Amino acid sequence: MEKQLNEKKRIDRALQILKKEKIEAFLINDLTDIRYLSGFTGDEASALIAPEALFLLVDSRFTTQAKLEAPLFQTLKISRRLEDTIKLIKRLKLKKVGFDAKVISCADFKELEKGLSGRALIPIEEGLRTLRIKKEKEEIKVIRQTIAISTQGFQKMKEKIKFGVTEKEVAAAYESAAKEAGADKLAFDIIVASGKRSALPHGVASGKKIGTQELIMIDFGIRYQGYCSDETCTMVMGIPAPKQKEVFNIIKTAHDRAIEKIKPGVSSQKIDKAARGYIEKKGFEKYFGHGTGHGIGLSVHEEPRISPLKNEILEEGMVFTIEPGIYLPNWGGVRIEDMVVVTRDGCEVLTLVPKNLEILN
Amino acid sequence: MEKQLNEKKRIDRALQILKKEKIEAFLINDLTDIRYLSGFTGDEASALIAPEALFLLVDSRFTTQAKLEAPLFQTLKISRRLEDTIKLIKRLKLKKVGFDAKVISCADFKELEKGLSGRALIPIEEGLRTLRIKKEKEEIKVIRQTIAISTQGFQKMKEKIKFGVTEKEVAAAYESAAKEAGADKLAFDIIVASGKRSALPHGVASGKKIGTQELIMIDFGIRYQGYCSDETCTMVMGIPAPKQKEVFNIIKTAHDRAIEKIKPGVSSQKIDKAARGYIEKKGFEKYFGHGTGHGIGLSVHEEPRISPLKNEILEEGMVFTIEPGIYLPNWGGVRIEDMVVVTRDGCEVLTLVPKNLEILN
Repeated sequence: MEKQLNEKKRIDRALQILKKEKIEAFLINDLTDIRYLSGFTGDEASALIAPEALFLLVDSRFTTQAKLEAPLFQTLKISRRLEDTIKLIKRLKLKKVGFDAKVISCADFKELEKGLSGRALIPIEEGLRTLRIKKEKEEIKVIRQTIAISTQGFQKMKEKIKFGVTEKEVAAAYESAAKEAGADKLAFDIIVASGKRSALPHGVASGKKIGTQELIMIDFGIRYQGYCSDETCTMVMGIPAPKQKEVFNIIKTAHDRAIEKIKPGVSSQKIDKAARGYIEKKGFEKYFGHGTGHGIGLSVHEEPRISPLKNEILEEGMVFTIEPGIYLPNWGGVRIEDMVVVTRDGCEVLTLVPKNLEILN
Repeated sequence: MEKQLNEKKRIDRALQILKKEKIEAFLINDLTDIRYLSGFTGDEASALIAPEALFLLVDSRFTTQAKLEAPLFQTLKISRRLEDTIKLIKRLKLKKVGFDAKVISCADFKELEKGLSGRALIPIEEGLRTLRIKKEKEEIKVIRQTIAISTQGFQKMKEKIKFGVTEKEVAAAYESAAKEAGADKLAFDIIVASGKRSALPHGVASGKKIGTQELIMIDFGIRYQGYCSDETCTMVMGIPAPKQKEVFNIIKTAHDRAIEKIKPGVSSQKIDKAARGYIEKKGFEKYFGHGTGHGIGLSVHEEPRISPLKNEILEEGMVFTIEPGIYLPNWGGVRIEDMVVVTRDGCEVLTLVPKNLEILN
């Protein structure tokens, strides 16, 4: 019941976008947006929303599920996605239909345009992405549960990390423990990158065995009730070398400085700059090639981006990661990553694992 | 070494497409196509291929990995994907660049077009999809290994299916056994749908307990070295009711009839018709809403489609599924699915689990 109430409010907010963009309806092809507005969790669907009516277009595999999960929408059984979309738009006599220009492909757009001759399809650059950028209280509650489950997996995984164990074994320990704790699935392929492999920012767990004095970078997350967690810890097997400690401390300070700056009204670029500027001061800016963070929710990566490339003003309720890193080819890398939520006057770190250099043996 | 030889041949075939389409280069944004041609397995990349040179565009997270995995390509480190793509095309003075119209979004196309004013971007409807449609011997070998691993998972899963066990427990048994046997990951969320839930063609495993005289539909597959397996078994807990047997036998015959018709030179629509026509004759056509099968390889779903909607002439080396199903709302459903490879004069069933109605207790 509560869930449908939320969905009603979300639909109202979506209809405000229609008004603002001066369009009669919006054709939604992003499955996450569809889930957010309707509750439908299946693999394939389109939706059309207008002030008068809400439609969910699914093929015969998903009709029963759609009716069950998305009671606020009319389920339409389709067989040819684009043709049936065209038919619906014609039947409703719509003349101005917005669509997400980042989601619909050139080929699909061409076919829709041809079928709808004379009716305008309006590309909306931002799509409905702004809708999901601030999390509702109920969403933050689920995200907290997601993180709690992931943390249980992390604890079990940590017990497993011993000299000579393979990265894959470490990853498997996390996965099985997190699932036992209630995770629906992993949010992404776990990164377990040890020794020189830790210089690969995306070093998916391999058959490599963990050796002494090696850095071990682990980036892990799960999905629970649709929501994602995402967190990175870097540890060291045995006594760390001075350079390992040095690089770790730079990243830890960069991470902390970014988090200190977070509050409503601040630009996302300023947050990125707080981390990046410190890494630059220490002479490692060449080795930090990605953004400082990304929004997270029903998608692992979503708005807002915390990067030099995009400016977004932070607002209360936004949830994103802070994850600076330094990757030195043929040596190794360090990244630490927390999830935070913007509060009324600052932010709260949502992830539970402390980000100190943990020494394993 | 062998791998790179294959990649050289694949690139040659890709360059033939350039010639045929009268374009100088092809901008590839489909990660599976990029993997097929280059060997790169990372999460994000673009590629540009031309007779003179091959480029792989990745951001700093993936440069080390790209150089390692894709030695036939020049790795270019980029920071802004579209801007850097535009710069490269300008630097190479290319005037006719093809792209996959089904992959590039309207928004990206608009930005590329703007940046490349005067240089033609040519949408190619088929993209490079035809490249991967016939499997090489080495690919079929890996697919066989993939299936062997999945079958080990299936055997363990079957031991687990008892009265009162939840669908999720059954799914977890498959996953852990398949991973222990060498699977890199699941190819998709396992479907375990029992009782009335088996009427959901995509009923992802839930907390429902398996009861007596219930149909249990299980659709499962893994990934190994990039390749996917995909298979469906329908079983029954206890002595089947006459109608359960009747529906199962219809599906079994439809499945067998489709497989009998497969050989080079036959149209994919004819294969679909062989299964669908029989289901129609038995009066259940309303309850079989999806295609009879789909190609499978580096993607779970790829060309050729075995469906009434698309005509494709079968050739030796194509690998696809045959998976007719009947789904009766509020009663249950039956689907069986095998993977086949087209041989010189017929086909070979690659999956190993026999598709009879298995009675569990």
